[in-house]
Amino acid sequence: MNVTLLGTGLMGAPMARRLCAAPGLAVTVWNRTPDKALPLAEAGATVATTLDQAVASADVVITMVDHGAAVANLLFDQGVAAAMRPGSLLIDMSSIKPREAREHAARLEARGIEALDAPVSGGTVGAEAGTLAIMVGGSEAAFERAAPVFAALGRATHVGPTGAGQLAKLANQMIVGITIGAVAEALLLAEAGGASPAGVRQAIRGGFAESRILEVHGQRMVERDFARRGAMAVQLKDMRNALETAREMGLSLPVTGLFEQLYASGNENGFADLDHSALFLEIERRLRL
Amino acid sequence: MNVTLLGTGLMGAPMARRLCAAPGLAVTVWNRTPDKALPLAEAGATVATTLDQAVASADVVITMVDHGAAVANLLFDQGVAAAMRPGSLLIDMSSIKPREAREHAARLEARGIEALDAPVSGGTVGAEAGTLAIMVGGSEAAFERAAPVFAALGRATHVGPTGAGQLAKLANQMIVGITIGAVAEALLLAEAGGASPAGVRQAIRGGFAESRILEVHGQRMVERDFARRGAMAVQLKDMRNALETAREMGLSLPVTGLFEQLYASGNENGFADLDHSALFLEIERRLRL
Repeated sequence: MNVTLLGTGLMGAPMARRLCAAPGLAVTVWNRTPDKALPLAEAGATVATTLDQAVASADVVITMVDHGAAVANLLFDQGVAAAMRPGSLLIDMSSIKPREAREHAARLEARGIEALDAPVSGGTVGAEAGTLAIMVGGSEAAFERAAPVFAALGRATHVGPTGAGQLAKLANQMIVGITIGAVAEALLLAEAGGASPAGVRQAIRGGFAESRILEVHGQRMVERDFARRGAMAVQLKDMRNALETAREMGLSLPVTGLFEQLYASGNENGFADLDHSALFLEIERRLRL
Repeated sequence: MNVTLLGTGLMGAPMARRLCAAPGLAVTVWNRTPDKALPLAEAGATVATTLDQAVASADVVITMVDHGAAVANLLFDQGVAAAMRPGSLLIDMSSIKPREAREHAARLEARGIEALDAPVSGGTVGAEAGTLAIMVGGSEAAFERAAPVFAALGRATHVGPTGAGQLAKLANQMIVGITIGAVAEALLLAEAGGASPAGVRQAIRGGFAESRILEVHGQRMVERDFARRGAMAVQLKDMRNALETAREMGLSLPVTGLFEQLYASGNENGFADLDHSALFLEIERRLRL
């Protein structure tokens, strides 16, 4: 199976390495700035210098770029969709809006190209280890066609029709962002009352309050170490994408609405370059308002 | 060590059994309605018929009742504090307000009785298995004295001075109640957009969105099975206790404030007798407002 990956950035590069190491896949890579793609030749990838060359003989093309506009630019402005073979498969693993995923899929399908939206969670660590959580929207048949690709990258779950993968990613980001607020506000109240935040975090672990956020981000709060791993600015973008997606359906999200305000305020109050666990600092600021 | 447990209800009875099975503890029990205490005689407990008789020779007295007023009634109206030996230890394992815990401890200490606030998490399952999470406020010396008792019941963590145990319990309840909202709103958005809630829950498990709430309460939401395990009404009480505790310190809790409204509204809209995961139904109701 010929697999082409477009976008060898922080996530795309280790994903390309996993694909190269998988049996039965012939891997081609392309990147807007070619320097980032070149090292992948050592891993066994063919490094294409033009997009036409990259995708012309591909069975599967993967896009892994920053946002929906960048995906659309590649596919429709820079000619990827036109250069792909009818009958081939486009897997967009970028995190974009559900509506954008549906629009892209419709335009691809008009050219005889199947599409899956398949955003991931797990970061660069998951990309390197091949343990990404992959949330997949699209047809069951396309999901099955993509199985060898997904197997190389992590654990894929088919969550519904086109756009459903992006909805799952939004759900993931909503839960992460809101749970950070839950842990922050709880530890702040305990600390203000004279309890040890480290002790409280330790005491409640393993019960119903247990979460990866309490484990990882709770520790960052206890240590007041807000060096960026996941960014406040990105968490705000996620909350806004969720609200925009809801508005398009005529829905309101009361909890996400509050958190959009909290993350926006945190970004404005000097925490934009910090880890998203720095929502702790924004809630701390508001404690005495 | 003579240990007396007052209050052999849903939690107290299995805790008494664990104490009876532990080495070196001579266990006496008492309950307001004696019928509930009698079966514990078979487990090896002495069943006291009066409070004076129950606590007069105790080294440690444990209270396990419903709320702060019930604790105060036992200790100061029904004469437990007066009947306890000076130098003995009172461990209140009820979930009450931090301020109440501090008031009780001050009155006990005036009589030469040490006090620990030591609420628990883990429910009847944890009480039966001896795996309760025990959050302990009070002096380090009193915490060490109580070690044989705590060892029989679960995993105890000393989280700070008097009242800190109750603050940790509030923190636990805040995180539980808010995380339920995070999971509910995320699954509702995904479902409204056409994704499978069951698939989304499965896809995001194991990542940063993972929590006991996603695992347990998320499954209840997927199945729309809101039969009560933890009650909506209790979750509302927890949110109000957190807000009241914050107000006493002149603090505001923006996230908990919203959730107090959501749980109050859920209780008013017919979900009061359901599981706290039924916050899902209240958020679903609000989606189209």
